[in-house]
Amino acid sequence: MNDDCIFCKIIKGEIPSFTLYEDEEIKVFLDVSPASKGHSLYIPKEHFSSITDVPEEKVILLRKLPKIVEKLKISTGATGMNILQNNGKDAGQIIDHLHFHLIPRYPEDHLMDIVPKLQLEENEARKIIENFKK
Amino acid sequence: MNDDCIFCKIIKGEIPSFTLYEDEEIKVFLDVSPASKGHSLYIPKEHFSSITDVPEEKVILLRKLPKIVEKLKISTGATGMNILQNNGKDAGQIIDHLHFHLIPRYPEDHLMDIVPKLQLEENEARKIIENFKK
Repeated sequence: MNDDCIFCKIIKGEIPSFTLYEDEEIKVFLDVSPASKGHSLYIPKEHFSSITDVPEEKVILLRKLPKIVEKLKISTGATGMNILQNNGKDAGQIIDHLHFHLIPRYPEDHLMDIVPKLQLEENEARKIIENFKK
Repeated sequence: MNDDCIFCKIIKGEIPSFTLYEDEEIKVFLDVSPASKGHSLYIPKEHFSSITDVPEEKVILLRKLPKIVEKLKISTGATGMNILQNNGKDAGQIIDHLHFHLIPRYPEDHLMDIVPKLQLEENEARKIIENFKK
């Protein structure tokens, strides 16, 4: 737990939230600034800042994700679902506690259809791989 | 394996890819239409259409995610990383094989800063929770 963290306070019940699901390991609650109807956050109760801070043996905290997504989809009547997890301010992360956005999608809502698509160049690709494998 | 699936063909080596990492369980390779430099896909070798098709005991296929993200971030010089997983055509899913977009982010690239933010209404929230818990 991190005393200055809003999500830790939500977990402790010091700040109220609209909770969909909760167990010893995770909490799922509605985002107060939803991108769509039913937009929720899936968070571990343990405080991690980023996905890169999660040790391999704790990735299991995602085990409820498939069922939660299924239930959220059915209960909202969504026809699709984006799972989005932002790491770092430059990636749009605002709260410094690992969270997965579950964004129900509906036909023709045009949400996030605007991500630019570049063209992968072979030279560039080889350079990226070389750096990655260093 | 699914004979008609492009990603299954990539896994079998029938279609080439720029591979960053691979083991018995997963493959990570560069997206051919990157949203940013180093945009990669993290996929299980087993064919699942959607996150909701993954049984709880197989969520462990994500165990390498923290380390891959860390390595991709360092090797590209990115300052942030979005992890995006789309389920269903209405969520922007094009290839019918579960995949996690790893999108390195750089200062002021303004990628995906345009997701609309609504305001969560209490009545709406209570209705969503009621339906979820049915």
